[in-house]
Formats: sequence, C-alpha cells, structure tokens
Amino acid sequence: MDMAADIPSDHFISRRIDIGRITLNVREKGNGPSMLFFHGITSNSAVFEPLMARLSDRFTTIAVDQRGHGLSAKPESGYEADDYADDIAGLLRTLDRGRAILVGHSLGARNSVTAAAKYPDLVRSVVAIDFTPYIETEVFDALEARVVAGDQLFDNVAAVEAYLARRYPNIPADAIKIRAQSGYQTVEGGLRPLASAAAMAQTARGLRSDLAAAFREVTKPVLIVRGEASKLVSAAALAKTSRLRPDLPVVVVPGADHYVNEVSPEITLKAITNFIDA
Amino acid sequence: MDMAADIPSDHFISRRIDIGRITLNVREKGNGPSMLFFHGITSNSAVFEPLMARLSDRFTTIAVDQRGHGLSAKPESGYEADDYADDIAGLLRTLDRGRAILVGHSLGARNSVTAAAKYPDLVRSVVAIDFTPYIETEVFDALEARVVAGDQLFDNVAAVEAYLARRYPNIPADAIKIRAQSGYQTVEGGLRPLASAAAMAQTARGLRSDLAAAFREVTKPVLIVRGEASKLVSAAALAKTSRLRPDLPVVVVPGADHYVNEVSPEITLKAITNFIDA
Repeated sequence: MDMAADIPSDHFISRRIDIGRITLNVREKGNGPSMLFFHGITSNSAVFEPLMARLSDRFTTIAVDQRGHGLSAKPESGYEADDYADDIAGLLRTLDRGRAILVGHSLGARNSVTAAAKYPDLVRSVVAIDFTPYIETEVFDALEARVVAGDQLFDNVAAVEAYLARRYPNIPADAIKIRAQSGYQTVEGGLRPLASAAAMAQTARGLRSDLAAAFREVTKPVLIVRGEASKLVSAAALAKTSRLRPDLPVVVVPGADHYVNEVSPEITLKAITNFIDA
Repeated sequence: MDMAADIPSDHFISRRIDIGRITLNVREKGNGPSMLFFHGITSNSAVFEPLMARLSDRFTTIAVDQRGHGLSAKPESGYEADDYADDIAGLLRTLDRGRAILVGHSLGARNSVTAAAKYPDLVRSVVAIDFTPYIETEVFDALEARVVAGDQLFDNVAAVEAYLARRYPNIPADAIKIRAQSGYQTVEGGLRPLASAAAMAQTARGLRSDLAAAFREVTKPVLIVRGEASKLVSAAALAKTSRLRPDLPVVVVPGADHYVNEVSPEITLKAITNFIDA
C-alpha cells in the first residue's frame, strides 16, 4: 500500500488519486478521449492491461482499482452499487477530462451502468461485460461461495497461479499470470489477496441488489456483452434484459465464459471498437 | 419522372443527382454529418421520412431511391449487389461530404454492407436492418413471389392501401399511407408501382447471391438489427451470422416483423442513436 505515485510499469503509469471521498489506485496509458476500465469482484485494474495496450494509441485508458480491491483504499463498509458508482463519478470529476467511455466487467459493469444512469453528464457510453439484471439467486449463491473461498494464504506465486487456474479454467495462462502477479501481497507466511475479505463479502452481497431500474433508466448507449458459456449471465437473464431494453445492442462471444475480456480479448477489442467507432 | 430539382415536400428536399453512372433521386433534410438511408425491394426513399424527421436535427439525412425504384433511373439490367453498392460509392463521392453512416433495410442493408466492405474509405458505419447472410432458399422463393405479385394495376390510392395493408399486416396505417402515396404513378386506367417490374425481378434474384464474404470482410462497424418475428431473417440465419462475426452488435426488436423501421420506428431510432453515439 506504500506504492509511490507515477511509477511506470511496462509503460503503464500507476498512480493514486484522492477523489475526496476515497483514494483510488489507477493504471493509465495513452492519449485521447477517456476510456475507463472497471474490474470484477476480487480482481484489480491489471486485468485490463492487454486491452489498454491495444486502445491506448487513441484513448487515454485508465483502469481503476475499485474500493476494497487492489491498491485502493478499503473502508470497513460502503460496498453497495451506489458507493461504487459515486466513486466513478468522483473520479471522473477529479480527472476533469470530459465524458468518459466506461468499460466494466461483472461488478465493474454493474457499477458502470449504475454510474451512467445516475450521472449521465459524466458518461459518454458503457460497455457492460457479462453482468445484467435478472441473474438468478442460485447463481449469486455460487458466486458468493467462490468469492469467500478466495481468502486464503498461499505459499508462493506458483500456488496462487495453480489456484487461479483451477478457479478460472478458461482464462489463458498469460492472463492468469497477470491476476497472480497483480492481486496478491506478501504477508507473514506467504501471499494473501490484496482484495479485502470483508469488502469482498459485502460486495458479493451487494451484487444481489435489483439492477433493472438502472438499466431501464440509463439514457447513454450501453453495449451488453455476454460470454456464450457464462455461468453468471444465463441466456434467460440476457433475454429478459433485452426485453427490458430492446434498443441496447448485444454481443454474445462464442466460447467465452464469464471472463470474456480475459478469455477472448480479440473479440472483446473488436466489439468495443465497433461500438465506439460507429 | 419530370420532377423538378429541389422541390420542398413536407420540409424534405427532393432532388435528382447525376452521379455519372446513373441519376438517382434523393430526399434530404437536416444538417450535420451524413446519414444515408437505403430502402428495401419495391419500396422507395419516403419510408424513412419518420426516422429522418427525428434525426435531421443533427445529421444531414439523405434517403435514396435506389436504381429501378421510385423516381431514380431504371436501366434494363444491372441489379446485382455490386451494381447497387457502386451506386452508393458514386453517390458518396458526388456528395463529397465525408464518411457517411449508412442505414439500410433489407435490400438496402445488403447494399450498405456490400458498399462498406468494398469502399471502406467512404463509410463510417452501417445499420443493417433485417438482412443477413444465410437466408434460406425457401424464404427467397416466397419473397420473389411477393415481389412479382406487386406488379398490378390499381383503381386508386385506396385500392393500393388495401393491397399494401394485406401484404404488410404489421405496418401501421400511417406508414402504409406513406408507401401508397410515394410508390405509385398514374397510368392509363389507374395506378402502377413506380418500381420497374423487370428491375424488381432481377433484384429479387440478385438477393440470393452469397453475402457471407461481405460480412466477413467488412471492417467498419455494422449494427445488425432483426425483427423478432421476421419471416426473412430467421433466428438460425442471425445465429449463423453472429458466429461468422461475433464482434458485430445485434439488436432484436420484439414484436417487429421484417419491416422493423416502419413497424417499430421508436426502437429503431433508439437503436441507431445508441450505436452512433457510443
């Protein structure tokens, strides 16, 4: 947590930004209009490096460690959709770079759509990857169990990688490596997740809150992306979401599970640019 | 065919443009970046007036009578995909207003995607409404039969409206009126379609040509729009198209048949702006 500001890492700038309500860690690369990235639960900003490397030639790409995650602050409470969305609004106001494209995966998609609905003046558009309203209770039960089970002590990075490869069987080895190297800290006896266990438990519960209102109300363009083999967003949940908002474009990525941007970065990249460049 | 240039009609300007290879009639309204509209087989530019009325506050909206249709020239032959696409390229070069957004329905969607694949430097993006590769042979058989059957002599506009209402049972009365008033000419003994029967027969046959290559090759963003109750683009044809190009966003309009923009203009409008404004 004592990482100095503005350390370049593989050409990414890592810096901490005090937005008043909280201090957030971000990774940044490139120039142009703002494109912000928001990761899923237990993850962190590093997972977007492959996409940022490809988009930073024409966008200021900024991936955010959301509250409770990565190198950002981890308050004891405040992990509802509104807390995360208010962080996005505060960050966008602090950055003061104009309306931003928000790319969110899972928790990050929920937070991005919530922010776009609540703060339309700050947002240009949203790419919402594999999180929709109408996710079934038993799916949330399974997600919560996986999230809680991640709070372990690991002997070393190899043990972390082995665990992550079992937990995410479709994510390629290079993307697993990014998660292993970016998401853990050295503690007495080994490595533990950077993500706060208490924050993860609250965040997992908060994911169950109704999201239909935000999807119904959002006036900014939202691209809905689903992994065809996703165990989080069922085909039924997507169909019901499309009935709620038939005007929102949908991309279903063949062969991808929930972790669309890590499993299928090329299709994700093309889907983003097809949406943004239209 | 002796319509004078630049006659305003309900605030739409109708004019004929000589693009060298052919003379095309267009309806125009508004200011801003170019958005061109291309109708389906047997139809004409007037069907897009409701969309143009809503989009002309920020786009130069230009709906085109395609060759063989409406008030445009009707050569004896030359009704393949390339002929229509080359007209689009010629028109865009003659207009010389920069890259255009192409909105096409059915035949117009086929022509727009073909033009975008062949002339990427002239096109910004495409909204392709209810026409994809992999349409089944029996669907084309039925379409060709309907097209050929349209070549009739009608007593008066009321008879035209009654015929169109039977042929297009889901298109609302106001949109049927637009088709009846814009698509027919007074002849000895009554009214006949403006669309040339010989051109329609050739165009219907030409629709059967393989479209997968153009969809595979197109590099510009394409929004695929399908009417959920379409009898032209089956769910299977759409699914196969999405497998060919999983990165292209899809909107499926509930309750709409093939004639999406006339049956569901509000959702069509929102789908277009969600795509264009992202």
